[in-house]
Amino acid sequence: MSVLPAAGVISLARGIPSPDMFPAQLLADCARRAVERHGRVALNYGPPLGFEPLREWIAERHGTTADRVALTPGSLIALNFIVRERFAGGGRAIVEAPTYDRMLRALAEAGAGVVTVDRTDAGLDLDRLQALLREGERPRLLYVLPTFHNPTGRTLTREQRVALVDFAIEHELLIYEDDPYRDVRIEGEHEPYLHALLYERGAEELALFTSSFSKTVAPGLRVGYALLPPQLAAPIEAMATHTYVSPPLLAQAQLLEFLEGGHLGPHLRHLGGFLGARRDALLRVLEDQLEGVATWTRPDGGYFLWLELPASLDATELNARAAAAGVAFVPGAGFFAGERGAGTARLAFSYPSVEEIDEGARRLATLVREAR
Amino acid sequence: MSVLPAAGVISLARGIPSPDMFPAQLLADCARRAVERHGRVALNYGPPLGFEPLREWIAERHGTTADRVALTPGSLIALNFIVRERFAGGGRAIVEAPTYDRMLRALAEAGAGVVTVDRTDAGLDLDRLQALLREGERPRLLYVLPTFHNPTGRTLTREQRVALVDFAIEHELLIYEDDPYRDVRIEGEHEPYLHALLYERGAEELALFTSSFSKTVAPGLRVGYALLPPQLAAPIEAMATHTYVSPPLLAQAQLLEFLEGGHLGPHLRHLGGFLGARRDALLRVLEDQLEGVATWTRPDGGYFLWLELPASLDATELNARAAAAGVAFVPGAGFFAGERGAGTARLAFSYPSVEEIDEGARRLATLVREAR
Repeated sequence: MSVLPAAGVISLARGIPSPDMFPAQLLADCARRAVERHGRVALNYGPPLGFEPLREWIAERHGTTADRVALTPGSLIALNFIVRERFAGGGRAIVEAPTYDRMLRALAEAGAGVVTVDRTDAGLDLDRLQALLREGERPRLLYVLPTFHNPTGRTLTREQRVALVDFAIEHELLIYEDDPYRDVRIEGEHEPYLHALLYERGAEELALFTSSFSKTVAPGLRVGYALLPPQLAAPIEAMATHTYVSPPLLAQAQLLEFLEGGHLGPHLRHLGGFLGARRDALLRVLEDQLEGVATWTRPDGGYFLWLELPASLDATELNARAAAAGVAFVPGAGFFAGERGAGTARLAFSYPSVEEIDEGARRLATLVREAR
Repeated sequence: MSVLPAAGVISLARGIPSPDMFPAQLLADCARRAVERHGRVALNYGPPLGFEPLREWIAERHGTTADRVALTPGSLIALNFIVRERFAGGGRAIVEAPTYDRMLRALAEAGAGVVTVDRTDAGLDLDRLQALLREGERPRLLYVLPTFHNPTGRTLTREQRVALVDFAIEHELLIYEDDPYRDVRIEGEHEPYLHALLYERGAEELALFTSSFSKTVAPGLRVGYALLPPQLAAPIEAMATHTYVSPPLLAQAQLLEFLEGGHLGPHLRHLGGFLGARRDALLRVLEDQLEGVATWTRPDGGYFLWLELPASLDATELNARAAAAGVAFVPGAGFFAGERGAGTARLAFSYPSVEEIDEGARRLATLVREAR
């Protein structure tokens, strides 16, 4: 069950960074300095919500206070804590269709009910959301991936964000904003965070946020984080204590050295160029080979784009043939709660080289055209 | 809920290392080298059971194969996975009385039933265990802390270990051996691991082991591990994937640099002297002040000793008075599954200095003598 692709196969499947994306020499220096400067604290057990100076750095960046910041060994474990806490006594979640597949699994494991609302280029279907609430739906949260959405690569516009926040405040709906790709931007300008808009309106208790440094710096550090609304801080702290005592403080101190050294901004600009070349290589082949045959998204950042295949084509069957042709992707059906998405696929451009992407996309496009 | 003691209070309570125990300069060098040598792998996502070369190092040390080694962010999370897996469908565990309090909590959270068997200087009460099985008890595991037991500091002799292993094989009883303090030895010789004795007898499927580098190197790395019997490897791997994708590989690579550099042996010898001075300071005060009043264990290593108070004294009440006098310990009742241990206390000698231990123990001894 490794997340690394099998040898010989070009993987457009897993959303993991290329090793060429890591700022390794800087991190080597930061690792040493973290031990020297913070070792007496960071080598020990410590606060279950993580290394205080990094909590403060993150709080300042997000306009909140350190007591709301929970550092976890990757953001997936924060997601799991949140789901366990919110759905301990049952209840239902509203998620986007499609949405992050690990969230669907976490909800299923917690025994939560799931209701879906479509997420398209037009944003989240607020009419459907409105109808659900009118029918008496009382969800324990709405899970949204606003930026470079996994799996589609789509991003909510500023207007769509404001409308969603208005809606959440009107209906006292807890917004769980999961946004790990936001800073991995190839072009364009940042849109405001949903939680920032909620904070501005004084609706802190409706704002729940997770992100991570796995997509921006390095997953092997395992530094994810949550910004918790006041009512969730104590229960999540107790879960962290009972699950692992305290998270890996040393890696958190190492990351802080990187951040305080001013390295994040330049590194993100470098990543934008790096991923831009890969996205463009993928888009070039799609435009060249599949124009008029399939449709796809054109993300301004992140790791993924979303392919909608010709109506007759089943992505799971296509994936089996693709494996034989030496290319892998993720069929889209797994990102839907129900029986949907048979003709969709997630293509990741973060791991292979430009040349591999070009070759892999050509193999895939050939299969699509043959299968029509 | 910090694990660090409150300012001004001498803590004989929490089993955490003194910051003076960390091999900080060596770890600083290892941190840098780990990024340089292993960064392309260790900075990424990877195998859910951890960094392969460290799994191999541990497997070799324990006479097993790397596919049985699960590296986790601290061993508590491995314990939680094991409990969740073994008691998913109900069932009961046999634990020692007293035992590690976090295990009792994990079992309670999993809804597991708990049966206890006394653990004293005479070892585990095998007659009671025999009687339980004769009465039809079919436990899903027997949880044992063989060496420098938490909370008592007691260690099973070789004969007691062989007898327990004989018993387990005869009754096909899964032994969950939790042994994080074993290498923190002040004096005396190592006894054989229970799992090693089981392996020798070809009973691998009865051997389940967890340990950690938190007590021997540094907790802030968060490197714990489990040696899994064949039937548990796949389910625990799936749990790790769904919980956090992969553990902190970079810290695991850093630790491997430390181990391959040959630093563990010398460091453990240093720790033995460091903790020996602290244990002796504590024993000196107890012998001087409480001989004939209370009794206590004299551990050959680990972080703890166990104090049995005069019959009239309640440790929880004593602890409240101790807090006012500027010393903290852990009342023993929390280490028992039922209503027992009111007159017992765990004293940890790992965190304070020799002078603080001397002063803290005197304060405590004075309270005990006054309260008699």
